[in-house]
Amino acid sequence: MAQTRTSVKYDTESMEQVFRYVGENKDRFVENLAMLVRQPSVAAKHEGIEECAGIVHDMLSRTINADAKVLKLEGASPLVTAEIKSKSNPGKTVTLYNHYDVQPAEPLDLWDSPPWEPVIRDGKLYGRGAADDKAELVGRLALTESFLKTRDDVPCNFRFVFEGEEEIGSINLHKYKKEDPELFRGDGVVWEFGSVDARERPVVTLGVKGILYVELTSTNANRDAHSSLAAVVENPAWRLVHALDTLKQGERILIPGWYEDVRKFTPSELQLLREQESEEGELKKELGIKGFIGGMTGLELKKALAGKPTCTICGMISGYTGPGSKTVLPKEASAKIDFRLVPDQKPAKLEKLLRSHLNKKGYRDVLVTYSEGEPASRTSHQDPIAQAAIRAAQSVHEKKPVVQVSSAGTGPMFLFDAPCVAIGGGYPSSRAHSPNENARLDLFVKGMKWVAETIDRFALS
Amino acid sequence: MAQTRTSVKYDTESMEQVFRYVGENKDRFVENLAMLVRQPSVAAKHEGIEECAGIVHDMLSRTINADAKVLKLEGASPLVTAEIKSKSNPGKTVTLYNHYDVQPAEPLDLWDSPPWEPVIRDGKLYGRGAADDKAELVGRLALTESFLKTRDDVPCNFRFVFEGEEEIGSINLHKYKKEDPELFRGDGVVWEFGSVDARERPVVTLGVKGILYVELTSTNANRDAHSSLAAVVENPAWRLVHALDTLKQGERILIPGWYEDVRKFTPSELQLLREQESEEGELKKELGIKGFIGGMTGLELKKALAGKPTCTICGMISGYTGPGSKTVLPKEASAKIDFRLVPDQKPAKLEKLLRSHLNKKGYRDVLVTYSEGEPASRTSHQDPIAQAAIRAAQSVHEKKPVVQVSSAGTGPMFLFDAPCVAIGGGYPSSRAHSPNENARLDLFVKGMKWVAETIDRFALS
Repeated sequence: MAQTRTSVKYDTESMEQVFRYVGENKDRFVENLAMLVRQPSVAAKHEGIEECAGIVHDMLSRTINADAKVLKLEGASPLVTAEIKSKSNPGKTVTLYNHYDVQPAEPLDLWDSPPWEPVIRDGKLYGRGAADDKAELVGRLALTESFLKTRDDVPCNFRFVFEGEEEIGSINLHKYKKEDPELFRGDGVVWEFGSVDARERPVVTLGVKGILYVELTSTNANRDAHSSLAAVVENPAWRLVHALDTLKQGERILIPGWYEDVRKFTPSELQLLREQESEEGELKKELGIKGFIGGMTGLELKKALAGKPTCTICGMISGYTGPGSKTVLPKEASAKIDFRLVPDQKPAKLEKLLRSHLNKKGYRDVLVTYSEGEPASRTSHQDPIAQAAIRAAQSVHEKKPVVQVSSAGTGPMFLFDAPCVAIGGGYPSSRAHSPNENARLDLFVKGMKWVAETIDRFALS
Repeated sequence: MAQTRTSVKYDTESMEQVFRYVGENKDRFVENLAMLVRQPSVAAKHEGIEECAGIVHDMLSRTINADAKVLKLEGASPLVTAEIKSKSNPGKTVTLYNHYDVQPAEPLDLWDSPPWEPVIRDGKLYGRGAADDKAELVGRLALTESFLKTRDDVPCNFRFVFEGEEEIGSINLHKYKKEDPELFRGDGVVWEFGSVDARERPVVTLGVKGILYVELTSTNANRDAHSSLAAVVENPAWRLVHALDTLKQGERILIPGWYEDVRKFTPSELQLLREQESEEGELKKELGIKGFIGGMTGLELKKALAGKPTCTICGMISGYTGPGSKTVLPKEASAKIDFRLVPDQKPAKLEKLLRSHLNKKGYRDVLVTYSEGEPASRTSHQDPIAQAAIRAAQSVHEKKPVVQVSSAGTGPMFLFDAPCVAIGGGYPSSRAHSPNENARLDLFVKGMKWVAETIDRFALS
């Protein structure tokens, strides 16, 4: 900490040279992004994953001459890794964590241009995965190249960990860690996402929520039957609705013990939350909603986003869902449920609580299929990597950054044995996970510079 | 009644000649059925309706030389009608009601052969609509032809009313009635369906349940959003689940006033229900279920099928329903609900009760979209058309028929101003409304004979 504070005489001139290189090569970096977006890589469907890992591997070789490795565990997406050793500062290592897999592109009919055919409109590159996380991944290769080309060195050792299952909960990343724990060590981690807020202020995020993702399924007959039989034959859609209804009342999750391990905000976290300006107006406009749950606002809203455990129906299906009316008694009904977790909730324990709750409520027949589970993670804003990100934000964006205690989102931060900071080139309307996902190209460049200066400052700390 | 009982000296010899003609021309009748099945006619999707009406019209001309009409009201499927006057008995008219529209074929992947490519396997013709209702429709033309070819006459006037919207609740049939009420008069109606039970006993059905079919929809944001926002943004899937949960507890519909107009079974209806043998074992086997709701059995089960108002989720959809996990906060959730009604429940009144119930429970924002509504209908087993069907069943099937107070299913019987009986050539495994729908060809023929003799006996009553 003291070390960071003393590095006041930071060499901005050398950084400017790196930035100039970034600017001069921008078009080529955008081409690399488009190339990566063009390759579908949907982990949920095992679609194009190997191909995308290959492209990332080749890009590491081609752009920064890295001796990249494509690690492959049975049944898992490949992990693409590489290391660039620093000549001047070999004692410190920063890890750059990104993912090359993306969300499914559905619903396809809501896209204005095909999700796998990147196009630039109004300074934004559109396509599935453009923002989450391909712009970040390409940006980090680009900033590394910019260091190497201007300094013939990197500020400290760079370690790239590019995974292919982030969007399905990084289900195998712990296995790669078991194989090679060294990959997950280091002095600091720059996380895969980051953005400006709706007022163009850079956001430094210090943590992520955890997740427990399950599917609840109820079944009965061996086929969809005529709905006239509903007078005597149990309807799994009703079973599911009644079972779901027992999980939540208002915003309270009704599963006994669910809140037992929830860690309270520390005074300094609360202070950060208070300082963080609210973006309520922007979010409402963005989503076209009149207000938030229960009229929530201000600190309460910020606390909910950073620290409220949630239980969300992400998807639900049963019977006939086409146009018009079909009188059918469904054979099956299912719902995908995403529970977001906060420190120190434990996914495995919560899964057991859920099962036991359903049993006690009489829904022993409702199947719970585990899909993913990750605990939450948080870094202190006083860590050197956090301080470097805060200072670099001020310098690159020329604005006081927003420091966020935790993202409302999730990621496998907990697997990395080092302080972690999430920064990057995103913005609130990037429509990650939605149709018309896009990356703003001005921020693609600015994000690169921000991460570059963060690492440069961190290397000196 | 007395009249029916005196017609003991029924001329079986003349009927035998008709039956012989049926037998000799069976293959051609099956070809007609295949031709009709080959034409998709899904009212819910407006798919192939006009084309199918045209084929039915041509078939009426070609097979029985009828001067058929294709009536067409704006926005409605065409109504195909025809009349064959009786030379010997012009004072009595029987109406033959059928429908040429069918249920959607989805889910397509569960069909063993394509739904619109009829094939015969093991004496069954497979295809969407084969059983419901194309075999019946073709069968009635075939039996009319058989009368005309053997007697050069029909036993009484025949009136054909073939509609194209039965599977979407006959939503426009009342408009056709307004245009031409005469079409809906007559002395008796033979309804569109009928079958043997699982023990091959012919079933005479005297009524149908009514229906109120609605769609409930909850919406919030203008797009699917990242599910991390669920901490503050209302989830329409949860709104829908909670709203649905207020509609039903166990088998009780919780909407105030729902049961107010329910007519109780008469003592003679109860007697028929008692006499009716239960088919519990067969139904369980057919659907692959262990038991019925609440362990229901015997008279209780038969009463439920014939006279219990139901509330059924026929379909439900929200958010991401593909493979794997997608962390999405859905913008919308909807459920298709089928309420089956009994005499004397009124669909319009119940729709208002539903709306008012949702409002009172705090779900004013949940949209209720009306899809179809029909009251229930019942004929006395002592009516001449019922007695004729019962006697003809015994004669053709050589088994005591099962007399059913009401089908658990629905149809626009209430629109016809005459006693009505439902008989035909179906069987319990015809998989109507399900994949692998099929018509058993032996029953296709036997059903024709049964309907023919029923009309012949009714004409004499």
